[in-house]
Amino acid sequence: MRDVAIIGVGINKWGELWEKSLRDIAVEASLKAISDTKIDHIDSMFIGCMSSGLFTGQEHIASVITDYLGHGHIPASRLESACASGGVAFRTGFAEVTAGLSDIVLVLGVEKMTDVSGDEATYALGTAADQEYESYNGATFPGLYAMMARRHMHEYKTTRRQLSLVAVKNHAHGVKNPNAQFRMEVTAEQVENSVRVADPLRILDCSPITDGAAAVILAPLSMAKKLTDKPLVKILGIGHATDTIALQSRETLCALSAVEKAASIAYKVAQVKPADINLAEVHDCFTIAEIMVSEALGFAEPGQGGKLVESGTTALGGKIPLNTSGGLKSKGHPVGATGVAQIVEITEQLRQESGPRQVKKARIGLAQNMGGTGGSSTVSILKSC
Amino acid sequence: MRDVAIIGVGINKWGELWEKSLRDIAVEASLKAISDTKIDHIDSMFIGCMSSGLFTGQEHIASVITDYLGHGHIPASRLESACASGGVAFRTGFAEVTAGLSDIVLVLGVEKMTDVSGDEATYALGTAADQEYESYNGATFPGLYAMMARRHMHEYKTTRRQLSLVAVKNHAHGVKNPNAQFRMEVTAEQVENSVRVADPLRILDCSPITDGAAAVILAPLSMAKKLTDKPLVKILGIGHATDTIALQSRETLCALSAVEKAASIAYKVAQVKPADINLAEVHDCFTIAEIMVSEALGFAEPGQGGKLVESGTTALGGKIPLNTSGGLKSKGHPVGATGVAQIVEITEQLRQESGPRQVKKARIGLAQNMGGTGGSSTVSILKSC
Repeated sequence: MRDVAIIGVGINKWGELWEKSLRDIAVEASLKAISDTKIDHIDSMFIGCMSSGLFTGQEHIASVITDYLGHGHIPASRLESACASGGVAFRTGFAEVTAGLSDIVLVLGVEKMTDVSGDEATYALGTAADQEYESYNGATFPGLYAMMARRHMHEYKTTRRQLSLVAVKNHAHGVKNPNAQFRMEVTAEQVENSVRVADPLRILDCSPITDGAAAVILAPLSMAKKLTDKPLVKILGIGHATDTIALQSRETLCALSAVEKAASIAYKVAQVKPADINLAEVHDCFTIAEIMVSEALGFAEPGQGGKLVESGTTALGGKIPLNTSGGLKSKGHPVGATGVAQIVEITEQLRQESGPRQVKKARIGLAQNMGGTGGSSTVSILKSC
Repeated sequence: MRDVAIIGVGINKWGELWEKSLRDIAVEASLKAISDTKIDHIDSMFIGCMSSGLFTGQEHIASVITDYLGHGHIPASRLESACASGGVAFRTGFAEVTAGLSDIVLVLGVEKMTDVSGDEATYALGTAADQEYESYNGATFPGLYAMMARRHMHEYKTTRRQLSLVAVKNHAHGVKNPNAQFRMEVTAEQVENSVRVADPLRILDCSPITDGAAAVILAPLSMAKKLTDKPLVKILGIGHATDTIALQSRETLCALSAVEKAASIAYKVAQVKPADINLAEVHDCFTIAEIMVSEALGFAEPGQGGKLVESGTTALGGKIPLNTSGGLKSKGHPVGATGVAQIVEITEQLRQESGPRQVKKARIGLAQNMGGTGGSSTVSILKSC
């Protein structure tokens, strides 16, 4: 197995991109990543995308995107694992390089979500839950996460204010990110007075509907120096795991076992501990998700994720900043793109290129991506060389 | 890179399986493949599925299927490349084992297509073409393949009768396959008098809408003997390539360059020539497709695929039998399952387990899977050990 480096990254401005199609934003991010390197070709491509079929009426996007990117004929596949699609595409690209099947691999994440109505988008997102036992009975994603939040509040005395502080922090970070969809500060009071979606979750507890793409280019570490002028970032380890699709099948609503499992694999392979991580991008699709993920990753004891955000530890300047990009909450959440965008943010941080949101002396970073209510998760650990 | 073997295969009876859901048929085929081995666990899973979102309202099927299979927590991803989804899942599973990331990998292909109306299924299948430039302008898949057929007839004097003979041959094979959807002989006259779909293609030139699943289990060749009592089959090489998504962007309608490219890679890696292949499963989604694929794989000169089928060379007992399973035409075409089912058929043939449709002395077999009108393709070459 060969060591693998990230030699280029690219992301576009996220938001409601009415004037652009899926293929437009996919090509835009891919070309930015290519321009970040000195490569003259790509050997293969892996694309994370959750539901181009339901959102845009286009499957077979690997053929579409290599074609429009001008790289026709290369092997290209789409990976899907709901909102963890980007993370699994990244893991699959890593496998391709480490196996020696390809040298230069483009991993793209993309989702075009605003070409359908709000109802249609809610339906499409609901396909990440158990359609037979959850969605068809009326459960929406905010509804499912609301149940997890309510139970976490009951078990661990997590407060409504702690949920709000996740949104406050991530929006404060997002203001510093020119590619973020919602670059605005919010206060805890604004979160708590925003429209109720599924009690206790308010609209400002929820990540938005977003169009966006992100791309990274991988190569064997041994070849990487010749292929880029940028500082190298090495992939130390990737963990991937699944959990039951439906909430009712789990032992508890208050833990994310797929995240715990993926993290334990990643830490083991990377030979690092949670305390070694300088910053992380985590899957804050709802404010409660970041709290629960911070526990599953070992940044807080079980049940103590609310106190962790309250303490300021996870803000820029704290000991373990979470979601310096603004996270899904402020940067936006084009579902299939999110996992790759997390890698882009960590890479830029490890290269010391993040400007006003730079984490000082960032050397080891972690990206955690999650599908559905935690039915799948990837955890990737990166290190500056 | 480690050598990889196929240690188990499983497939269920294909057809209109009204009484079974996607998860039912996925688990059924997976358990059959597991029972074909002596394994006590699976390390990871890769699932080929084209459009579970549009066909069943369920994405995130990697979580659903590992959960219902009783293998929760293992890494699992879904691969999509339209009707080549099964082929790319097989290639990705191979990469996982050869890289050393997993030892025992389950590759599943599945599609549940009959839970929607015929119009909805036609729409879902149309998402494999270019939605912006083909489907939205009214082109259906039979329409696109009809243009390819018409041009092939014009350029190479391919006859209507030669198209029919593909259907006649594959149905004759399918009669010998207990898992085939349409186990009936058809005559050339019946094909030519069947309902016109898109001239010159008749309904009996088209593969059907099918529910079905197929599974194979991979392991490093060095461990394989301990994990199964069945004869071992080694993966000699896999090629994968893409082409333009839309027909109008191609230099010719009469060649499948993704298939040619994938085949050239597979032959090179496997170190074999077309003449070394004892049998092949090829992507006969329409009768013209088998004719064009037989040329792209080097079994016939360009333009001579019609004469090849007419000569009997590709029938059971001929020099290079194509689609002994019945092919997509008679066995059925659950789009994401097809690529994996081809591997099941070749594996059983190489193990000499195919009963009345056994190819004598079969030692090297090839499986060719294709997405859309050839926008993507995989070619896998297998050998008995």
